[in-house]
Amino acid sequence: MILTPPTGRFDGTLHSFPVRVYFEDTDLSGIVYHANYLRYFERARSDMLARVGIDQRGAHDEGFGAYAVTAMDIRWKRPAKLDDELVVESRVTKVRAASCSIQQRVRRADAILAEAQVTAALLTPEGRPRRQPADWVEKFKAVAEEGMNT
Amino acid sequence: MILTPPTGRFDGTLHSFPVRVYFEDTDLSGIVYHANYLRYFERARSDMLARVGIDQRGAHDEGFGAYAVTAMDIRWKRPAKLDDELVVESRVTKVRAASCSIQQRVRRADAILAEAQVTAALLTPEGRPRRQPADWVEKFKAVAEEGMNT
Amino acid sequence: MILTPPTGRFDGTLHSFPVRVYFEDTDLSGIVYHANYLRYFERARSDMLARVGIDQRGAHDEGFGAYAVTAMDIRWKRPAKLDDELVVESRVTKVRAASCSIQQRVRRADAILAEAQVTAALLTPEGRPRRQPADWVEKFKAVAEEGMNT
Amino acid sequence: MILTPPTGRFDGTLHSFPVRVYFEDTDLSGIVYHANYLRYFERARSDMLARVGIDQRGAHDEGFGAYAVTAMDIRWKRPAKLDDELVVESRVTKVRAASCSIQQRVRRADAILAEAQVTAALLTPEGRPRRQPADWVEKFKAVAEEGMNT
Repeated sequence: MILTPPTGRFDGTLHSFPVRVYFEDTDLSGIVYHANYLRYFERARSDMLARVGIDQRGAHDEGFGAYAVTAMDIRWKRPAKLDDELVVESRVTKVRAASCSIQQRVRRADAILAEAQVTAALLTPEGRPRRQPADWVEKFKAVAEEGMNT
Repeated sequence: MILTPPTGRFDGTLHSFPVRVYFEDTDLSGIVYHANYLRYFERARSDMLARVGIDQRGAHDEGFGAYAVTAMDIRWKRPAKLDDELVVESRVTKVRAASCSIQQRVRRADAILAEAQVTAALLTPEGRPRRQPADWVEKFKAVAEEGMNT
Repeated sequence: MILTPPTGRFDGTLHSFPVRVYFEDTDLSGIVYHANYLRYFERARSDMLARVGIDQRGAHDEGFGAYAVTAMDIRWKRPAKLDDELVVESRVTKVRAASCSIQQRVRRADAILAEAQVTAALLTPEGRPRRQPADWVEKFKAVAEEGMNT
Repeated sequence: MILTPPTGRFDGTLHSFPVRVYFEDTDLSGIVYHANYLRYFERARSDMLARVGIDQRGAHDEGFGAYAVTAMDIRWKRPAKLDDELVVESRVTKVRAASCSIQQRVRRADAILAEAQVTAALLTPEGRPRRQPADWVEKFKAVAEEGMNT
């Protein structure tokens, strides 16, 4: 048995990614601190990039740039607690020249805990918007429209 | 000279709260990690409660409950960097029986870095919505309509 | 295929737990922010408790108490970077009435990135030290001396 | 009245820096999560550098390098809670060619909550140790031996 970090998968156009809640995620209300859902969403998007075949770290190391979140509309509906096993579900809903829209939600079994509509834009290391490479756009369109199975 | 933690103030209906950017706030893009703006917004709302005369910790310790963010629409416009001196500006825009709406933004000098529309609801320790005490509602209405100077 | 959050395992007295590095973990130096290793160590200890059969959340929910770190000696040796697959290795080295000592380290393949000697003490919800239940002490002694395979 | 972010000061060889505890800092035990003390220590060290006249951001932006923590021995003694006003006290205890030792502690009024012995080393952007500039060494030696008043 090989130890592997958490890994998500595509099932058609739906990407799913598992998260467990640790002490670091909670606050004194006894539930996950609201800002930490954004960390969960980002882990899922990073995994989605990896599944689609885009090398975030390579792009950063070569000075090409990185994705930045430019807009997010979130609703928190139910609390998550220590030790909960959550799934972050993500769908690419729109692919533009320099950005993508992604619908994301966090669920625990059948309960939806949080939902977000996210816009992520590709930025140069200097912070200016840049067009996504043509093959990245194609990859995103492929998972947005036909999906994949991993 | 007495050392004091950062403290905000009201100038009419506008509450301002200072934040400095540290290493902990940045990510490998060299700028503040997007989720950390939610921590800045929350610090400013906590300070606003203190200025208005609401004791969050007392409410928690007595088992009365705490505010939870239930909705947030955010736009990130410009990056913040290490050592930047930021100001979080907040305005209560609507006071309901069990929740408030707050408009918040982060600026560095005259540049707006991020804007958010936030809904915060009062919850019991079990996570159920509860009506805000009448004097809290009055305090919020007072700062929303007439403001205060501190 | 079922999605599961990261899960560690015991191989004798050595517990191993996988971690992947995300944007949230890095700082503007391009590497994992030093304090975040403590989050990795804590995730591994939480997993170790679960493997040993101790229910942290249950203990908290029943008002029994929780483990708190009271001492840590850490050495950071090599940096971790975005997307790195790390393993946190942990060994219980001493079991006392109210606390345990755990040796932990973070490695990437054969390179040791960080090492820590940790003391975790059981505290009541009011923050006072309390004796560990006899069956917990036995479980810790068992993994410290004979180990287990999971 | 001008809004200023929290700022520390030297009183002889002792540097003091104020911190307030927010929701983000706490965990479900109702107290400050242990790893967050490392963030408080780092804020205080950053402020100390600024007071001494060393420009961390400039050094990073010019590709010169940055300080990294290479060793820390910490003891957590008493919990900190929401809204607590804390002071981080720091003293430079040893200045070497490529690193410094700093003694730090967090206190609330007269109670010591945590103590740490920290080693911070100057690293190039590639992560290799580098000698501290001669004028930085002098500045550290000056605050370590004679102190300053700010």
